[in-house]
Amino acid sequence: MDLSTFRRAAHAAVDRICDYYATIEQLPVAAQVERGYLARALPDAAPTNGEAWEQIERDFEQHILPGMTHWQHPMFFGFFPSNATYEGIIADMYTSALTNPGFNWNASPAVTELEFIVLDWLAKMMGLSSAFYSNDLSHSGGGVILGGASEATLTIAISARERALRALAEQHSESSADPIAWRAAMVPKLVMYGTTQTHSVGAKAAMMLGIRFRALDVARKDQYGLRGETLRAAIEEDTARGRIPFMLVATYGTTNSCAIDHLDEIAEVAKSSPLLWLHVDAAYGGVTWCLPENRPERIIAAFNARFDSLSTNLHKWGLVQMECSPTFVRDRHDLAKALSMTPDILKSKGMDPAALNDLRNLQIVLGRRFRALKVWFMLRSYGTTGFQEHLRRSIALARSFADQLRDMPAFEIVNPPRWGLVMFRLRAPDESVDVDALNHALNDALLERSDQLFLSPTVLPEVGYCERLVVGAPATTEEHIQKTLRILQECADSVLSK
Amino acid sequence: MDLSTFRRAAHAAVDRICDYYATIEQLPVAAQVERGYLARALPDAAPTNGEAWEQIERDFEQHILPGMTHWQHPMFFGFFPSNATYEGIIADMYTSALTNPGFNWNASPAVTELEFIVLDWLAKMMGLSSAFYSNDLSHSGGGVILGGASEATLTIAISARERALRALAEQHSESSADPIAWRAAMVPKLVMYGTTQTHSVGAKAAMMLGIRFRALDVARKDQYGLRGETLRAAIEEDTARGRIPFMLVATYGTTNSCAIDHLDEIAEVAKSSPLLWLHVDAAYGGVTWCLPENRPERIIAAFNARFDSLSTNLHKWGLVQMECSPTFVRDRHDLAKALSMTPDILKSKGMDPAALNDLRNLQIVLGRRFRALKVWFMLRSYGTTGFQEHLRRSIALARSFADQLRDMPAFEIVNPPRWGLVMFRLRAPDESVDVDALNHALNDALLERSDQLFLSPTVLPEVGYCERLVVGAPATTEEHIQKTLRILQECADSVLSK
Repeated sequence: MDLSTFRRAAHAAVDRICDYYATIEQLPVAAQVERGYLARALPDAAPTNGEAWEQIERDFEQHILPGMTHWQHPMFFGFFPSNATYEGIIADMYTSALTNPGFNWNASPAVTELEFIVLDWLAKMMGLSSAFYSNDLSHSGGGVILGGASEATLTIAISARERALRALAEQHSESSADPIAWRAAMVPKLVMYGTTQTHSVGAKAAMMLGIRFRALDVARKDQYGLRGETLRAAIEEDTARGRIPFMLVATYGTTNSCAIDHLDEIAEVAKSSPLLWLHVDAAYGGVTWCLPENRPERIIAAFNARFDSLSTNLHKWGLVQMECSPTFVRDRHDLAKALSMTPDILKSKGMDPAALNDLRNLQIVLGRRFRALKVWFMLRSYGTTGFQEHLRRSIALARSFADQLRDMPAFEIVNPPRWGLVMFRLRAPDESVDVDALNHALNDALLERSDQLFLSPTVLPEVGYCERLVVGAPATTEEHIQKTLRILQECADSVLSK
Repeated sequence: MDLSTFRRAAHAAVDRICDYYATIEQLPVAAQVERGYLARALPDAAPTNGEAWEQIERDFEQHILPGMTHWQHPMFFGFFPSNATYEGIIADMYTSALTNPGFNWNASPAVTELEFIVLDWLAKMMGLSSAFYSNDLSHSGGGVILGGASEATLTIAISARERALRALAEQHSESSADPIAWRAAMVPKLVMYGTTQTHSVGAKAAMMLGIRFRALDVARKDQYGLRGETLRAAIEEDTARGRIPFMLVATYGTTNSCAIDHLDEIAEVAKSSPLLWLHVDAAYGGVTWCLPENRPERIIAAFNARFDSLSTNLHKWGLVQMECSPTFVRDRHDLAKALSMTPDILKSKGMDPAALNDLRNLQIVLGRRFRALKVWFMLRSYGTTGFQEHLRRSIALARSFADQLRDMPAFEIVNPPRWGLVMFRLRAPDESVDVDALNHALNDALLERSDQLFLSPTVLPEVGYCERLVVGAPATTEEHIQKTLRILQECADSVLSK
């Protein structure tokens, strides 16, 4: 494709994207295709000769678009949102045009420097203490934008394990004879904590590292949040068994039910466990710290006083396209000590191979895209008030949904709504009805309407199978809430009449 | 930003990108900024109120662009290329507009299905056997597009370790009592092999997993490629010590010098080590298998017969924007067994939690961008012949550079050129001159010309400090090779006159 063809094709793509957003409501929310539909439609080998762009675009519209589930659709209420903004699209255009791997400062200084600047902007918006600012040179705290919560949790787990093993090694002079063997011998003692409601990113990180993951109990009466006493009992029990709790993955807004672990109680209990790295997975909930009326000052104070790290996904509810998980740590040296490795070709004159201002020392991967640009574009275009307004709109719509659902006798709300999330199910009309089976039937009915709305069901402990509605797409309005309630009532009528 | 503002802003961005490519040669290749330039230019907090898009765009041009090193500049010869194409920009626009995390098939069927289709296209272009096709249901081999070589190597290392430990556990009934402890006790026995020239992705993966990495020796006489005999001796030695070689990171085109490990000899030696997972890091060199005249049939046959996996970065020399590392494995179950973990919310009716057609089971992360679209756009627009033409042009230009440099008495080529890479240095005019110091002085002189050209020096074993020129940007022509040679001669004259 030459420059003039690109100019034409890219302008046409802009118009297509505008049309897409203007008419998204007319599209089926969830893709209505069968498994394998695309392999049946496309050739099984690349063409020998290049094809005309018009043909490629036509096939994109004919074959790819019907296979997309439209996460920006105002009737998409599944999982968590995956926000797109116009600002983000333009940022992705520039990122793509200027593509470069940004592993070192000198690979493209703006890539590294803008990242630290927007991380500080976000830290301030969230109320994090200056210990977590990247551009405050009085300390070594700061951040990095990782790809997602899985990567963030694994990165922190590697760093926490390294910090714990180094601390232990200092007490054991025999550790230096064969460090790999000595460390491996320590591994069975290490325990990573989460709860039964922690996202699988915690247990998966532990599995990938061959480390014990212990899921601590949480209860419905605590809205599934980890209590300090539960943590204290686990630490005492594990310590008595000779084990070493080295990391806790606390959650601020679990995927299942938006549960909040009690960070204040956790910080208090952890005072006597200096080896225990306290991480907060705030993938979905972190952005709510930007709302004064939602900001739990005591919780944030506890975070600032004792926690070691936090990650939040701006690519969920934070108006930034994937992949964008700002991750803050109290000491970036903990990352660099675990992740820095510099081949000759990346060394330059006078450089510090483990420098905290070279991104590769703060992450698992070497190079990746320019992630800060879309955050910068979005925050400047929305301002902090516009960003807050977006969150407040979602919260208000979820509240409106919950309020109206409470008036519908067929349904019950099974967990106090939080932020954009409402969890509900059909009530059993009498005791002879299996409420889980009834709600599986409801979900089957909803699946048949997946062209009109998209929800993702789950299982809530002490409750059972239930539906989960999350408001978060910028396009959703009260009208869509009304429509959703109507569809739910229709599905309920249909299921209950059987 | 509303839709009409976006339409205007996005059209303007298209024109800016066109202007950028039309005038890229007039820009300094490397950013000419000082560390910290951007924090001095931008506010230290996000604006309270949203700003006008024109102002944001102006700041982008004034503050961000000067901090970019232009990897698409025809005079960029550093590291490895990081190709951008117009097709990739349009794909990134759509990916960004349709953003969604694609973790499961049903998150967006097209995301998953197009990925398997383009992986098969590439596998066929590279001459991989059908054992590596994703859409061939007669076996469980196939691929996944990971973010980069670091992620690919770590993903494979986790999978290889899992496969080895499962095989060992089957022989040890006591392993089931406390699998974590039993596995940890095995870890000090495990050895991952690479060579002294393997990219740090190998050693870094081992470090992150707490596993031994052994860098096997390679020699200049073998062009730094690993020989079968070296591997055989290492396996015998380690086995005699009670160790278990479980993975080899072989390289097809090292970063330092484009060294090629002898895959045929390795396959032969590994016949008697069924536990040894053979991986090929073909980050840069993999695409050359698409060229019939460059295709080492014996090597590819050896790969197809015995190797377990290969990854190559289309985002280097393969005309696709970051992040795009197709990774092929002989058995995707090896990935799923090590990486699958399914929370309730991701379960749907009748699903297999470890299904090979849900991307999250084949990768470390849960969700990520739609990566296949840019591969599909590029391959359809270029066709296989256009793709080959691009590679051939780079190779021909590198050959032209080498041929002309051979006629310049001040310089010597220190390693046989391969593909787009030429390694060279200044000759010492007499024995009193330290050749390394001389070439450090050359590099200093080149750094002063970094607005005009960009090279990245390295250290070559048995040779020393030298320059490294890699042709790969689609914009580079013979004219730029001429200009490069002129600048090199001027720098040589300046250094040698001192």
